[in-house]
Amino acid sequence: MLTLYHYWSSVCSQKAGFCLAEKGLEWQSRHIDLFTFDHWQPDYLALNPKAVVPTLDHDGHVLIESNVIAEYLDDAFSGPALIPTDALAKARMRLWLYDSEAIAHPGVNTASYNPRHAPRLARFSKEQLMETVSGHPDRNTRIRMMKRAEHGVPAEEEHTAYANLGDLLDRMEATLADGLWILGEAFSLADIAMAPYINRIEVLERPEMVAEAVRPRVAEWWQRVQGRPGFHEAFSFANPNADDPVKR
Amino acid sequence: MLTLYHYWSSVCSQKAGFCLAEKGLEWQSRHIDLFTFDHWQPDYLALNPKAVVPTLDHDGHVLIESNVIAEYLDDAFSGPALIPTDALAKARMRLWLYDSEAIAHPGVNTASYNPRHAPRLARFSKEQLMETVSGHPDRNTRIRMMKRAEHGVPAEEEHTAYANLGDLLDRMEATLADGLWILGEAFSLADIAMAPYINRIEVLERPEMVAEAVRPRVAEWWQRVQGRPGFHEAFSFANPNADDPVKR
Repeated sequence: MLTLYHYWSSVCSQKAGFCLAEKGLEWQSRHIDLFTFDHWQPDYLALNPKAVVPTLDHDGHVLIESNVIAEYLDDAFSGPALIPTDALAKARMRLWLYDSEAIAHPGVNTASYNPRHAPRLARFSKEQLMETVSGHPDRNTRIRMMKRAEHGVPAEEEHTAYANLGDLLDRMEATLADGLWILGEAFSLADIAMAPYINRIEVLERPEMVAEAVRPRVAEWWQRVQGRPGFHEAFSFANPNADDPVKR
Repeated sequence: MLTLYHYWSSVCSQKAGFCLAEKGLEWQSRHIDLFTFDHWQPDYLALNPKAVVPTLDHDGHVLIESNVIAEYLDDAFSGPALIPTDALAKARMRLWLYDSEAIAHPGVNTASYNPRHAPRLARFSKEQLMETVSGHPDRNTRIRMMKRAEHGVPAEEEHTAYANLGDLLDRMEATLADGLWILGEAFSLADIAMAPYINRIEVLERPEMVAEAVRPRVAEWWQRVQGRPGFHEAFSFANPNADDPVKR
């Protein structure tokens, strides 16, 4: 049995969900609300000591880190292959997985704080928020959240985040000259890894970054991704918290 | 033909070199001096736009990112298998590869600046150094290096870096209860990925972090790693720059 611990709008959760859907696998949902701090509870930390989503439980085996989960699902299950067999193509795929994590992820995380995370935390006073986030179980996230509780994300940092995302999108635009998908003719984990970030860029109201007029190949790729069999399942999980000020 | 662009003491270069050595592969060395900024030259940036080492050229195919290179070498070449076949074991291995990059690497990079990087840059005045590093081709490294040129690495940041390294070593200590190597009975890329960081911790004169009395399983593992056939080849590349104030 597959159980995914995930948060409705988390990019890494969407990545895992997109994999599950494209592999045609059934899974049970355990929704972890990051803004009521479900991920700080001892039961969840026992599964995921980094206090992040997603976590996959496969018959009692616990897997963390979305890229590790993505490769695992393709390794462990039959169904449509999402990893190429050629060693060079695999290496190219893994570079996209890595850069989605190392470049796209901090980019959208930084860019999402002021418009998306801060409103969800606005129920706290600044002092309460500082006290709350200083209890974050992960040292590095704690340091980052304490800085953000104090100042929000400064404009300069947000600007750098969008510039980094722009560079990665430029690389994607160049890469897509060679085919319909990031690796060429075959849809792969590289496309699955990048999709949630393109979705978030749209949601952040920066659709011009992925617009036809600016990056036409990325724009067409994004249309193709939205036509995939697994897309709807991965990107339409309804937020169980009706009071969330963030709706998309 | 295999050509590795690498720097003698770079942890990620040592990781790639250790893989090559354990696979028994012949390779040509192209030494890239990070402190005379060889990696900022247009020829090198054309291969590695991130301006980091290592880069592998295999018959004209260019591969970057040490973890991608490591999996590629095992995928593309016969010789001793460094990746397990079982899907769960592979996922565990990839989590170690990822954490070596996401946790150990920023840890030793931060901890290495004051004692190792700064002395190599001491030939510049503060103003010259600021002007020099503000030309770094990678945006994020540029921002980080400009901060460091101004202030060095503050004690608090160094402290956090060592605390993060300590947490990872604790996890390693716990994992090694199950066998001689990180995945159990078989030596793998997980061991290769962690070895350069343990080496650096020793070189940074924090040998107590990996001492028998503190983390006995890590200490014994490190002895075993140093007895591997590929260890000497990977960790003994002589620094071609005799003027480097850093000798280990």
